[in-house]
Amino acid sequence: MSQLRRDPITGRWIIVNYEKVVEPEEFSFERAVKSNNTKKCPFCPGNEHMTPPEIVAHRNIGAPNTPGWTIRVVPNKYPALEIKGDLNKQGIGVFDRMNGIGAHEVIVDIPHHMRDVADISDEQAEEIIWSYISRNTDLRKDKRFKYILIFRNYGKSAGASLEHPHSQLIALPIVPKRVNEELNSSLEYYNYKDRCVFCDILVQELSDKERIVEENDFFISFCPFVSRFPYEMWIMPKRHESHFTSLQKEEVKPLGTILRNSMKKLKKLLNNPPYNYIIHTSPINGFEKEYYHWHIEIMPKLVNVAGFEWGSGFYVNPIPPEVAARNLMK
Amino acid sequence: MSQLRRDPITGRWIIVNYEKVVEPEEFSFERAVKSNNTKKCPFCPGNEHMTPPEIVAHRNIGAPNTPGWTIRVVPNKYPALEIKGDLNKQGIGVFDRMNGIGAHEVIVDIPHHMRDVADISDEQAEEIIWSYISRNTDLRKDKRFKYILIFRNYGKSAGASLEHPHSQLIALPIVPKRVNEELNSSLEYYNYKDRCVFCDILVQELSDKERIVEENDFFISFCPFVSRFPYEMWIMPKRHESHFTSLQKEEVKPLGTILRNSMKKLKKLLNNPPYNYIIHTSPINGFEKEYYHWHIEIMPKLVNVAGFEWGSGFYVNPIPPEVAARNLMK
Repeated sequence: MSQLRRDPITGRWIIVNYEKVVEPEEFSFERAVKSNNTKKCPFCPGNEHMTPPEIVAHRNIGAPNTPGWTIRVVPNKYPALEIKGDLNKQGIGVFDRMNGIGAHEVIVDIPHHMRDVADISDEQAEEIIWSYISRNTDLRKDKRFKYILIFRNYGKSAGASLEHPHSQLIALPIVPKRVNEELNSSLEYYNYKDRCVFCDILVQELSDKERIVEENDFFISFCPFVSRFPYEMWIMPKRHESHFTSLQKEEVKPLGTILRNSMKKLKKLLNNPPYNYIIHTSPINGFEKEYYHWHIEIMPKLVNVAGFEWGSGFYVNPIPPEVAARNLMK
Repeated sequence: MSQLRRDPITGRWIIVNYEKVVEPEEFSFERAVKSNNTKKCPFCPGNEHMTPPEIVAHRNIGAPNTPGWTIRVVPNKYPALEIKGDLNKQGIGVFDRMNGIGAHEVIVDIPHHMRDVADISDEQAEEIIWSYISRNTDLRKDKRFKYILIFRNYGKSAGASLEHPHSQLIALPIVPKRVNEELNSSLEYYNYKDRCVFCDILVQELSDKERIVEENDFFISFCPFVSRFPYEMWIMPKRHESHFTSLQKEEVKPLGTILRNSMKKLKKLLNNPPYNYIIHTSPINGFEKEYYHWHIEIMPKLVNVAGFEWGSGFYVNPIPPEVAARNLMK
């Protein structure tokens, strides 16, 4: 019989299949292949002229917009939102609209076309985290922005339009719906129990030990009890903190390492699956919230979201997270 | 510049691209192809033994589980939820779980393997609607169920695991999160304005005339102002009614026809795209709600949902719905 599980954070339910557990090799997903066509790749070293001029780069050698960088941040050439202009909020009858103001940046965080987070050094992984922190810190000075979202799409079916590995940052003029939902339901839990729901989950995961994939002094990586997707993993700081940029200096490298190690396990087990990861953090004005706890959600794209999920917000997961964690640990 | 639009029903925002509108032929999606391999298809006439015994069928001739049917309803062979047993609700520390009790039925609503809703007669379209109503009416007698969701996945990338066209029904022991969200925010609007938000949208769409794809005496089909997806279409009854099964007899045929016609336009314009459609209706105990209005949402699967959408609940739509409606009308 399948099991229904309820997420204490959002109230979302999932259906976990226990009858017939799908083996890793049974998933038929669109693999994240790469063509090694680096000549035409705008994110490869030597092709810096193919992107808009860089906003910032980590480099030991070379002039801006030339090779020698380890991380390069550029404006998105086809931005979902534009940095210049006013919001111009308007009502149109029953509807509301505003101009698409925001920032949309690409963080080219791995120079090598054929590699991904799974394949990099501890140092490069640490640099990636530093780049996320510094872009976040820079953009939150702009008073028009209310939320900064950092995410990574890997593989075409996970929405990556370019093969070269990269992360993206979008600064938004409003706090998005999903974030508000997470904040509101965490607050409800806090009001009821006087505790952070994420801290409670952390304690339980550390005691159950069934779903932990990786652990170090500062972070755990685990397949959540209420995983929507097969092989979903979350990375959560052990220290309660609501905003991602409140990371302390000594936490940056361990975060990079646990992220790299988790991605390595995923890549090995499932043979290079497409995925998204997303940093869930409180809004720009949301520092020191006692009820919210930043974390990273890693969502491999192994199954298609269908009508049932769209209509209900339920997710059917063919792999119990306990089995997923065990397989990832092999 | 792109435009941000806010859905008055759910508060969801979308980003509509106005800079570079994508032409219908520019989408690179996984087309819903079919193999015409009807011998092994469990939903083709003659293969009735390959499914569990039928729950009900519309037929003029033949015994149960033999050919001669126009619509055949069978239990899902691999159900997400099972009909037998108790819920057995439990807390496990911070988490909640219950047994996966529910009904999961397949409505094989077109005998012909190679056809879809776009290709059927007015009579068959009407029969499909009748089958939705009667399964709904039958299952809501079971007191364990709180919500009945009817949906259709067409094409592999839209989550269809079998090629033969079919709809699905899932009866759930709880009201799903998405439905509650829609209900709650419609109620908020109603409390504020004393009007149904869907009725307000209907009035505005009928007066704007920019986004209507098809209209008859009882229904309109339109590309909503806040379309999440390119070529998203909604079918909405002109008469306010919160529950789908409150359809009146004279409305059934026009609903089948407008659904068929809308799907025909979509199939022709985009050359057989994968899609999901979902009937949004109030819960089983939700008849005669003044603030909710049942409708059908049709979501073609032309683009991949990526990290930004997952993280924010924002959707980036590369086609203004006004352009989508105009293209569908051509």
